[in-house]
This record gives sequence, structure tokens and C-alpha cells, in this order.
Amino acid sequence: MPKIVAAITTSVDGYITGPNDGPAKGLGEGGERLHYWVMGGRWSYEAEPRGEPEGVDADYLHEMMQRGGAIVVGRKMYEAAGHWGDKNPFGMPVFVVTHRPQDEHDTGEFTFVGDFKQAIERAKATAGDKDVSIGGGADVIRQGLDAGIVDELHIIVAPVILGGGKHLFEDFTRSLDLQNLRVRQSRWATFIEFAVQR
Amino acid sequence: MPKIVAAITTSVDGYITGPNDGPAKGLGEGGERLHYWVMGGRWSYEAEPRGEPEGVDADYLHEMMQRGGAIVVGRKMYEAAGHWGDKNPFGMPVFVVTHRPQDEHDTGEFTFVGDFKQAIERAKATAGDKDVSIGGGADVIRQGLDAGIVDELHIIVAPVILGGGKHLFEDFTRSLDLQNLRVRQSRWATFIEFAVQR
Repeated sequence: MPKIVAAITTSVDGYITGPNDGPAKGLGEGGERLHYWVMGGRWSYEAEPRGEPEGVDADYLHEMMQRGGAIVVGRKMYEAAGHWGDKNPFGMPVFVVTHRPQDEHDTGEFTFVGDFKQAIERAKATAGDKDVSIGGGADVIRQGLDAGIVDELHIIVAPVILGGGKHLFEDFTRSLDLQNLRVRQSRWATFIEFAVQR
Repeated sequence: MPKIVAAITTSVDGYITGPNDGPAKGLGEGGERLHYWVMGGRWSYEAEPRGEPEGVDADYLHEMMQRGGAIVVGRKMYEAAGHWGDKNPFGMPVFVVTHRPQDEHDTGEFTFVGDFKQAIERAKATAGDKDVSIGGGADVIRQGLDAGIVDELHIIVAPVILGGGKHLFEDFTRSLDLQNLRVRQSRWATFIEFAVQR
């Protein structure tokens, strides 16, 4: 059975961005440290170039690419990431949840969908026997957990305390039992994989 | 050089207790799930008996016992735990941080100290060439991180989303760079060890 896998990087204090995130500063102040594992080490919005992930970091990304048949992301994340330069970086179809699907850009790279549930349904249909990822931001992950449709939750913990920003579990008041599936660690991240109990 | 090691168990959403913690319900509603790893599996405040930790869980506790020469805890945690039945369970001297050191019970098991800094100094003097632990609650760990005296931070993640309770990083606004030291996982917990960069 294909699974729905929510996966996101957080700081040790649970933030998915630093303070003052948004367009052109997608991960907020100091938030680049969340994604050292994606970039193969230190990088910043100010300084190029960025590297490639290695070792455990690359393994994890590769596995997610192999398993995934489609990914659902939120509009804010899409904007904060600068539309990924209008080029889909995920290696699978991307469905963007937005209140304004008519805003879809004419690149053919991303599909805008009017609500979360519909985005998941379209992603499942596209993914076939592969998994559907929920890639963030925090709000679509919380919606998935709240709807009880998430099979696996992957928390990728970056070795930083941010002290502020957007919190993954902001205003989330449900209690859910999880099951430990796996953990591994690189220099830049700890990858914790949970099954969500139903 | 002896180290100062702050170690605490949190839920995946960062809570160190469930909602409505306090005396007689130390870990709050549903908070027992945080400490399945300490008790060798499922337990509750209502039902006895409680078991013993095994495998990775026992290994971690054993290492902390071996390394530690003294432990500092907060008064609220001491009260929430029902004074651990007036019997020191840590296998090393315990210093309890409190505004009312005159409240110390006459058991000889716990030493009350009037402020955090003084508690750390007394614990260091007692520990000699062994480490000093900061065992919680959240406030003493935040004080240690804020004062810049913590060498290692151990976050023990229980596989549960609590949806409410006391948050480890409540109102903590400093940003700190950490370094990944180690990770391991049992059925009941993921033990992540960080060095705090100075």
C-alpha cells in the first residue's frame, strides 16, 4: 500500500524557519542552518555557491525520491522558496495548496490546487503505487496530521536552536501516538522516522 | 575536563509534560508516554507495577550514572515527582534549585540551594572530575543554556505528540549552534546528543 509521508526539517527547538521568513528569505534569519544537510554544508542566502548533499544526507534524499510519486506543498513555502526558480526540484509532480489556484504560473512545473484534501487526492492518483509526500510548510503537515491521513512522519533535526520563527506544531492540540521506525545522523542532521498510529 | 550535561525527555512536539502537570501527576495528562523508556514500557500513574529499562534505554541511563558526579534539578520537578518518595533515585548527590532553601526536608537525600548558579557551583565541587547533570525541568535547562554553561544537550525524544503541556523552549529566544555527537533509538525513545558550540 502506498503511504503518505510528511517530512520536514526543524531546529532542536521545533522551528521550521528562523524569524522573519518570507519571499527572498525563505528560511528566515539564520534559517540557512536548517538546510546545511540539503546543501552539503554551510551556505547562506548572501553567498554562493551551494554544494551537494553527501553520505547519510544524500541517502535520505535519494530514498525519498525513490519512494515518492508526488509531493504536496503549501503556497507559502512555494513563495518563500522563490518558486524554486520556476523549476521543479523534487523529481516528481508537485501539487501546491492555495486559496487562489488561478495564480498558477504558466511553467508547467507546478500544479496549483484549491484545497488540501483535493491536493492529496490528486497526488495519490498521480503517484499510483508510489508514496505521496507532504513536504511542508508547517500548516500542510499539521493539516495532514489533524486529518489522520499521515502514515509516516519524518522529522529531520538540524543541530541548531533558532530561538524564534515558525513552529512546526504551533496551535496543534491533538495528541498522537507514534512508533519509532528508524534513526540516522550526519554531521548536519538527525533523521527520525516515525509511523503514526491509527 | 568535567562537562555540564543538560538532559531531558520531550515529546516530538517539544513538551516535557502533558497538560495539567503538577504534584501527584508529575508528567501531566498522558505524559506517562514520555517515560516509557525509563520504565521498560507502558505504565501509568493509576496502574502498577512499573518495569525496568532495557537495552539502549538501560545503556543510556547507565552511561549517565557513570559520567555524573552530581545533578541539578528544579524545585517544581522535585515536587511534581513527589520528592521521588524522599529517596534519591539518581545514584549521585542532587541539588534542588529553589527560592525557599529553608523548605529542605530532613531526609538527607536532597540538598536545597537558593539559586541556579550556586547550585551549579556546589554540584561542580561535589562532582570533582565527574560531570554535572542538569536534569530538568525546562526552566533550569533554559537557565543553563542561557548562561552559556552547558557543554552537552541531550534530547530524548519519546514517540508521541502531546498537543499541550510545558514546552522545553517556552520563551527561549537565544540562537545557539550545536554539533551532532551521537544518536541511538530504542522502541520507546530516540537519544540525540549534541555539543553546544561556544
